[in-house]
Amino acid sequence: MMNYQNFFTAALERLQEERRYRVFADIERIAGQFPTALWHSPEGTRKITVWCSNDYLGMGQSRDVTRAMVETAWRLGTGAGGTRNISGNSHPIVELEAELADLHGKEAGLVFTSGYVSNQTGISTLAKLIPDCLILSDALNHNSMIEGVRQSGCDKVIFRHNDLDHLEELLKAAGDRPKLIVFESVYSMDGDIAPIHAICDLAERYNAMTYLDEVHAVGMYGPRGGGIAERDGAMHRVDVIEGTLGKAFGVMGGYLTGTKAVMDAIRSFAPGFIFTTALPPAVAAAATASIRHLKASGAERQKHQRQVARTKAVLAGVGIPVMDTVTHIVPVMVGNAEACKAASDRLLERHGIYIQPINYPTVPRGTERLRITPGPLHTDEHINALAAALVEVWTALKLPLQPKAQAAE
Amino acid sequence: MMNYQNFFTAALERLQEERRYRVFADIERIAGQFPTALWHSPEGTRKITVWCSNDYLGMGQSRDVTRAMVETAWRLGTGAGGTRNISGNSHPIVELEAELADLHGKEAGLVFTSGYVSNQTGISTLAKLIPDCLILSDALNHNSMIEGVRQSGCDKVIFRHNDLDHLEELLKAAGDRPKLIVFESVYSMDGDIAPIHAICDLAERYNAMTYLDEVHAVGMYGPRGGGIAERDGAMHRVDVIEGTLGKAFGVMGGYLTGTKAVMDAIRSFAPGFIFTTALPPAVAAAATASIRHLKASGAERQKHQRQVARTKAVLAGVGIPVMDTVTHIVPVMVGNAEACKAASDRLLERHGIYIQPINYPTVPRGTERLRITPGPLHTDEHINALAAALVEVWTALKLPLQPKAQAAE
Repeated sequence: MMNYQNFFTAALERLQEERRYRVFADIERIAGQFPTALWHSPEGTRKITVWCSNDYLGMGQSRDVTRAMVETAWRLGTGAGGTRNISGNSHPIVELEAELADLHGKEAGLVFTSGYVSNQTGISTLAKLIPDCLILSDALNHNSMIEGVRQSGCDKVIFRHNDLDHLEELLKAAGDRPKLIVFESVYSMDGDIAPIHAICDLAERYNAMTYLDEVHAVGMYGPRGGGIAERDGAMHRVDVIEGTLGKAFGVMGGYLTGTKAVMDAIRSFAPGFIFTTALPPAVAAAATASIRHLKASGAERQKHQRQVARTKAVLAGVGIPVMDTVTHIVPVMVGNAEACKAASDRLLERHGIYIQPINYPTVPRGTERLRITPGPLHTDEHINALAAALVEVWTALKLPLQPKAQAAE
Repeated sequence: MMNYQNFFTAALERLQEERRYRVFADIERIAGQFPTALWHSPEGTRKITVWCSNDYLGMGQSRDVTRAMVETAWRLGTGAGGTRNISGNSHPIVELEAELADLHGKEAGLVFTSGYVSNQTGISTLAKLIPDCLILSDALNHNSMIEGVRQSGCDKVIFRHNDLDHLEELLKAAGDRPKLIVFESVYSMDGDIAPIHAICDLAERYNAMTYLDEVHAVGMYGPRGGGIAERDGAMHRVDVIEGTLGKAFGVMGGYLTGTKAVMDAIRSFAPGFIFTTALPPAVAAAATASIRHLKASGAERQKHQRQVARTKAVLAGVGIPVMDTVTHIVPVMVGNAEACKAASDRLLERHGIYIQPINYPTVPRGTERLRITPGPLHTDEHINALAAALVEVWTALKLPLQPKAQAAE
């Protein structure tokens, strides 16, 4: 006879043995002081520097964005009060969807409670609606996309990460049946970028629809923050662009943009959209304020790129094994769960630097890493302090430093 | 060759032919005036009365709840900035989970971005972890629970709605294998209630775990707003209690509560929890303020029950076919999608009363209805106006009124 309680206790013990048990640091951000935050540790509260936030541009503490949330909360209250269909629709969410459509140059936008949900219910609904649809999915797609593909119940094939030859081979093999290519622009854990134009070329040649996840790019790339597809002049070629309001825009929620017909179909059939309470008006208003700001201002993006380049150069200069990336994500490979956790703990406890270890299942086993996300609000002093702390930790834990000459090549 | 755009356009045309195409009313709530709101219609903006909100107690416009959101937004900013594991944990969300555990008398709580996600990823993760688990699911469970059951990939059997004999038969037939019973306390579309003690009796007899969705009950039932299980003295007998922060608590988000081991296992393995940005600190703080208020104050619950009873009596008194329920949900059966939509449209356009039609897939075809949710802020005058408007609409659309004598029985 099953003892459920003992069973769950044993499952957790196995996780601890594998060093995969996650402890969430109890962090309290301080608006106006980001990336400085408070850490409520068992030994008391102290100030730390956050180096792993997905609030990439610090917009989550922007006074204009906060003011939009606050004013809307006082005017309209805290919650939506229902699903979009049943009394939860609000004027701010209607405005937000128009703003998102404009951001990506599409006819319509559709807001979800999270980027995760937008991918999960968006991909599965889209693919389910198309008769006999074959999904072609990049091997490194995010878990939310994988779940969307899985839940569609459609046939799927995985193409090797950013591999155009492999993708073409699979498209060709599929013949005339309807096809949906799902991929990301910026891959968050490796920091590399998809060849969007080339993928669209293939999609046109083989009559496939395209679905692009831009969650790690919106707000940060392109003249108005429309993402990599905007930067590359490819937005109009992609059928569905997905994004998030919870990273560079600094709030929460996810969205899709596309033609009116496709958005309307997802709106009408997606269970994860229909049966869930809408985003609060105050959250929607804050997101709209953030998007509008980043459409008009390139200052955050310029400062961001500068501090990212500087961080990469300084870390490489002191021999830290920074993975080579073309984006704002700076992964430092460790390659083992225990060392990765130990490095993260030592950074926090001795140096007041918060970089969460990235372990399985977020990345494959054996590729455990620290994932550093410099932002425009990290100063040159912050970067120097980070470099010194990493060298101390790498030395103390006997992790390999790279020869400096080689790193500077 | 597939023309995707034409395909989606055609799919939407079919939906319109079936009268299932949904138009979201563009509503703007006015804090301090609920249930009065603004309706942005194509003909201009006018004041209406909302009668279908799931902000059941009007807490979404409470000054204390709004103040908690606003103060936290000014202090900590608008967004969480990451997943719970990667820099998105915050002190307010840690406090919220402790508050939720206390609300339900459980060891631990776990917060999700929505009630939908808590059910979907909570049930699927729980059932997947238990080897050879059989899920026993009530026939009227919400879509989010059905998706959770489906995504677990486990064997499942459906028991007839609230039917203890059928449930026992299925439990007995399952033999010794691990079993999980998933059910709701208040079924939202019919307004009836599960026999929680009797289901727990069966669960104990046949060694099954129990998972109870209390989203339409938390805040509203029980001395501290713990739900129907609290009211019935059955909270300690249920293994996992799921709830929402987006209905009676007036904010957004969902949660689970249970033993430390079970919550910790779901926290560690649920993809819909691990891979999504955390709830903003300001949203978490607002939810905590709302829960604390409703734990201490029974005034909203008393007023709610009074206005619900009054609404039922007044509507029945004028012959409106109110379905018999023992909860705060007052469904009025129409039985056909077109008439239901016409009644809703006429209520809004002629009477300024907003009650969304409930059509398939939210309820089975042929059981289309208006679902009225009276709250403590609906006055007796609001109720009288609603009754008069419904009679006018029923008469104009030639819908059957009930003989008054019979309705009063």
